[in-house]
Amino acid sequence: MPDLYDVAAIGNAIVDVITPASDDFLVEQDLPKGGMTLIDEARASELYDAMAPGVETSGGSAANTVAGIASFGGRAAFLGKVADDQLGEVFGHDMRALGAHFDTPPLKGGPATGRCLINVTPDSERTMATYLGAANQLGPDDVDARIIESSKITFLEGYLFTPDEARKAFAKAAVLARTNDRLIALTLSATFVVESFREVLIDFIEQQVDILFANEEEIAALFQTKDFDEAVSLTRPHVKIAALTCGAQGSVIIGGGEVHKVAAEPVKLMDTTGAGDAYAAGFLYGLSHGRPLNLCGKLGSIAASEVISHYGARPTVSLRDLAIKAGL
Amino acid sequence: MPDLYDVAAIGNAIVDVITPASDDFLVEQDLPKGGMTLIDEARASELYDAMAPGVETSGGSAANTVAGIASFGGRAAFLGKVADDQLGEVFGHDMRALGAHFDTPPLKGGPATGRCLINVTPDSERTMATYLGAANQLGPDDVDARIIESSKITFLEGYLFTPDEARKAFAKAAVLARTNDRLIALTLSATFVVESFREVLIDFIEQQVDILFANEEEIAALFQTKDFDEAVSLTRPHVKIAALTCGAQGSVIIGGGEVHKVAAEPVKLMDTTGAGDAYAAGFLYGLSHGRPLNLCGKLGSIAASEVISHYGARPTVSLRDLAIKAGL
Repeated sequence: MPDLYDVAAIGNAIVDVITPASDDFLVEQDLPKGGMTLIDEARASELYDAMAPGVETSGGSAANTVAGIASFGGRAAFLGKVADDQLGEVFGHDMRALGAHFDTPPLKGGPATGRCLINVTPDSERTMATYLGAANQLGPDDVDARIIESSKITFLEGYLFTPDEARKAFAKAAVLARTNDRLIALTLSATFVVESFREVLIDFIEQQVDILFANEEEIAALFQTKDFDEAVSLTRPHVKIAALTCGAQGSVIIGGGEVHKVAAEPVKLMDTTGAGDAYAAGFLYGLSHGRPLNLCGKLGSIAASEVISHYGARPTVSLRDLAIKAGL
Repeated sequence: MPDLYDVAAIGNAIVDVITPASDDFLVEQDLPKGGMTLIDEARASELYDAMAPGVETSGGSAANTVAGIASFGGRAAFLGKVADDQLGEVFGHDMRALGAHFDTPPLKGGPATGRCLINVTPDSERTMATYLGAANQLGPDDVDARIIESSKITFLEGYLFTPDEARKAFAKAAVLARTNDRLIALTLSATFVVESFREVLIDFIEQQVDILFANEEEIAALFQTKDFDEAVSLTRPHVKIAALTCGAQGSVIIGGGEVHKVAAEPVKLMDTTGAGDAYAAGFLYGLSHGRPLNLCGKLGSIAASEVISHYGARPTVSLRDLAIKAGL
């Protein structure tokens, strides 16, 4: 198959509702600060009622990564499930408007399009509560073989390890990618994903994954250690390439027998939502264009710094322009 | 009736879709720059498909004014029609979350919640294309007598002069306000409203309106003159108070036999959407709290300057805090 796409990403199709909040509000609502909590429809409705006026933007972790890749000028496709409703229409519009391919059929007659209720505290930290809705109904039939076969890299969002049908979709995508000599990337997404599926994840990583993304908490949880350096050592035998992010400390990249440390870009922090997603966008854009690993990391840092400098999880200026400005 | 609200506003209940655009895009789409064009559902769908990824926020002219009054710490109610759909839910949530009263029953089985597609060009000018949808279906039955009777000022959005049923709703609200010794304010909203309803508007202003809001183009259109000073003179015999805005030149306030000139607040312009709505918020908040007219104008300028310094038509910081900071 020809290379139609640099990256095909499979993830939750979600619309974000972003609003400022106080630390007290998080306590009242019993939301663990900085975390991501899954909530049902009733709880989503109750929490939304209590929240301040918001702004709606398309989100979803891997979908944000697709937006970043498109902003670098890369060719990307997204596979994810919205419902046949207004927010689903908004999600699809935004995906196509940024130049990405998106044609997963919307869910009819089931739950509504998923929503992530994001409260941003005065310290710029985001706390997320997600009602997955239709996003959770992705299954193997939604994995379009032609897209996976014609993408250099297939990128899987760890959040989708939880529903059985989505895990089957990942397995199908992995086989398709593997038999077409394509690369497979995975992000661990959250510690609760790691804690619920540690053994399954380690097996999947060993057998299928070429590029692993995780932040320091997630990789530590995967290998049940509290020491980041130990986690780095434990990661090495399991995967060809790993990009491990450490917030303001930048990232550590393992690959080709080497370990690279990449600094974060200095920036005025506004809202951390989407930092990891943007990092993955820069990294995967670089990798799919044959850049060395340390430059892939640098592209990741540039993308992350843009996204955390404003409200919302997707870039608002051209990442391609920023990369050119930085001499990459 | 007791004073439950400072202001009750009747207007279009609309969700804004805001996105950056080039001047070329406006030409391609045949959208008059800086203007507001009414579009039908098919055209809205076609235009939306062509637009860049957007951000959704609650909007609507008088509804933005209500948001501003609430931000000053005022008590406000909004009457307007959304549909029984997701964007209607977003609109209602945002209205209530900012502390305003809103309980107009949503439209069932008719058109969707109205949307304003806003393209913001690099010079910060906003160009709007509005699909009114359910907003256009407001009628006299939606005018809750208890709200009008218990509001110091009833504020009418000129855009709603176009549909017959909404004009009947205005007439009903005017009678209710008048018989309860309440004030009536009207904004002309747009030159096309003035040009379509000049005679009806002049009659309505003479018979019912205590406070008139207009920008320089609208007031010039009303009195069919190109000279702003002449328009000011022609306004005086028709209405007790008029607040005429002139963009960066500030505003001219007529009232009590005097004419006040109020400067605009200096600000880094980002997006002019909602400037007039915010001005009306400051002015009406001041008036309902017994402030002299020149200070009402100053409160209007402060509110407008906040709203044009960022994307989106509603304040993002407390206008009450800004007013206190300015010694008002």
